[in-house]
Amino acid sequence: MGYMGRQRLRARALDWRSQARDHGLQGRDHRHSRIVTPFLTPLDADALRSVGVSDPWSYGMADRVRFGEIDALNHVNNVVYLRWYETLRVNYLHDYGIYEDAGPDPKFVVKTVGLDYKAEVHRGANYINVARTTQMRNTSFTMHYATFIDGRITTTGDAVIVLLNADNSKRALPDALRQTFITRDGAVQA
Amino acid sequence: MGYMGRQRLRARALDWRSQARDHGLQGRDHRHSRIVTPFLTPLDADALRSVGVSDPWSYGMADRVRFGEIDALNHVNNVVYLRWYETLRVNYLHDYGIYEDAGPDPKFVVKTVGLDYKAEVHRGANYINVARTTQMRNTSFTMHYATFIDGRITTTGDAVIVLLNADNSKRALPDALRQTFITRDGAVQA
Amino acid sequence: MGYMGRQRLRARALDWRSQARDHGLQGRDHRHSRIVTPFLTPLDADALRSVGVSDPWSYGMADRVRFGEIDALNHVNNVVYLRWYETLRVNYLHDYGIYEDAGPDPKFVVKTVGLDYKAEVHRGANYINVARTTQMRNTSFTMHYATFIDGRITTTGDAVIVLLNADNSKRALPDALRQTFITRDGAVQA
Amino acid sequence: MGYMGRQRLRARALDWRSQARDHGLQGRDHRHSRIVTPFLTPLDADALRSVGVSDPWSYGMADRVRFGEIDALNHVNNVVYLRWYETLRVNYLHDYGIYEDAGPDPKFVVKTVGLDYKAEVHRGANYINVARTTQMRNTSFTMHYATFIDGRITTTGDAVIVLLNADNSKRALPDALRQTFITRDGAVQA
Repeated sequence: MGYMGRQRLRARALDWRSQARDHGLQGRDHRHSRIVTPFLTPLDADALRSVGVSDPWSYGMADRVRFGEIDALNHVNNVVYLRWYETLRVNYLHDYGIYEDAGPDPKFVVKTVGLDYKAEVHRGANYINVARTTQMRNTSFTMHYATFIDGRITTTGDAVIVLLNADNSKRALPDALRQTFITRDGAVQA
Repeated sequence: MGYMGRQRLRARALDWRSQARDHGLQGRDHRHSRIVTPFLTPLDADALRSVGVSDPWSYGMADRVRFGEIDALNHVNNVVYLRWYETLRVNYLHDYGIYEDAGPDPKFVVKTVGLDYKAEVHRGANYINVARTTQMRNTSFTMHYATFIDGRITTTGDAVIVLLNADNSKRALPDALRQTFITRDGAVQA
Repeated sequence: MGYMGRQRLRARALDWRSQARDHGLQGRDHRHSRIVTPFLTPLDADALRSVGVSDPWSYGMADRVRFGEIDALNHVNNVVYLRWYETLRVNYLHDYGIYEDAGPDPKFVVKTVGLDYKAEVHRGANYINVARTTQMRNTSFTMHYATFIDGRITTTGDAVIVLLNADNSKRALPDALRQTFITRDGAVQA
Repeated sequence: MGYMGRQRLRARALDWRSQARDHGLQGRDHRHSRIVTPFLTPLDADALRSVGVSDPWSYGMADRVRFGEIDALNHVNNVVYLRWYETLRVNYLHDYGIYEDAGPDPKFVVKTVGLDYKAEVHRGANYINVARTTQMRNTSFTMHYATFIDGRITTTGDAVIVLLNADNSKRALPDALRQTFITRDGAVQA
């Protein structure tokens, strides 16, 4: 159920806040002048705000650039962002309980993607990828993505996801799924 | 020089045609009912037409899906197409002499990309990726990409490429570069 | 059947030789001083010898380094070679009919791999990856791999592959499989 | 300086311990029965012991399997482990101050790698990769790697790394570097 997913996310976000409080800071480690946002852990709206991720993003995850993501031009390769947003999308669908909201054996198929590169990113950088669903149609929805580094967006993306039945016919978005997108992300019917 | 690039491409395309003629066929191996388009070799408009790639595409390259490009859903992963088009773009810029046409030490920076997935692709499939430049602006140009399998498009893409100077300031597209895009691909000023 | 696999490979190798003959050369294009070995097409012992791949390699495939395979150190990334040998292994198993020789629903599981990097490789390089089976044990076999550029080995590798039943218990190598390894590659019982 | 590197690592490890203490547990979250080892943060010997990583490993980092690391066989692809150990090696060299210990403009070149796959790993799994240097020779050293999941090793690896000068001639390991390997990892002269 989507509700269970929500509980799960809240519990993790609380973990994060207690960790930050233990350091007497809001997401910043004063000894190192480094953000101590936990990596690979779902971050909710409050957690995101405290590290400079602006409204209305309410789901994100911090990660770090690896050596293998740098290309011959010495920045994060263009292709890597699409991999990042894929990882984030799978986590988002899981953590928000969207697989359960979608009915039995749902198939989420990516129909289109777009990326807009605003600034290059280098090795070792800590970044926060964020995702939200902005629009719903009968059998599909649109997600937006962004990469934040030190509170600044370096790349944005979007994807249209189609919901299919086991036989690959299109499936109308169930009410539970629509409600999840509206409640969590303020998604609107297109 | 761009002209040299053109010569180079023509020589390779002739190679391809003589190979096909040697088999008494036009790009099809009758013993195997398999297309014998050479892999990883630039294909011009004639070569593309003979294997079912429609007008106006005039630059492409055949390749084959590898095991490592298949994901847990048993089809070519969404991200892989962006890698394919990157490879093709680098070859296109090289084979058409565009690095030379762009002036001293050009920097080609990808500003945006978009992908539209029309059909899934499986392991071992032979495909032809094609590229052309459709639009030019003052300091940037738009390329289109497509993946053909057995004469049918399975994915399309586009990218806006910005031309920069060594100091990362924008560089106006030189006349030689514009002429290359117009002559080869019928690009128009946007 | 393995026999069919062998026929298939021979037909393709003949294609290659007739292409080379049509150019009045042995695998070398005199106009371009470039090897015209066909890409992504299985090459047999004769084809390999004519492009400088030494005895006893008898199965290989030519390919070209892509931009995305180059890392921040401006050479082919260490990890990429393991991907190359994976691709080659899958092709080898398929082209030599080894899946058929292994009995119903075989599972080939990689147990160990090793790589020895002898020289770095750069963008755009044409290379030939070769594979052969050198040793057999009761339920596993050892393959060797090498990457040739201009007749010189730049990297070697090896892998131990275990044959499993559907329930993941070990399966003794069937006689047909042993015979394939002996006949094609001169593999010995360890 | 290597010493600075050591300080840095200790500070981070302390962060981790205070986070764990704040939860009234030793690296385990009782509400979720989930290990709360921080991701992508260097872990020292104490931190590793508390989550079941056995002696003598004293450097590691927790991470999580991504969708894109799963292949058509529905487990973490063989090649991915080599990427993981590359990422870990770069972090190890950085966090232990080894780049500084190696003298001016050091080049660390991977000469050989080996991997031994003991158990397959699935999507979403949390794992801890560990690294240590076991042997030194005149101009090279041997590292070992392992992947732990729930206190059990699923894969091991090793690599021989050669130290080069700017002109690619071999460089003898400086005393500072030897001392780092001996002090931190108990490395022995081979």
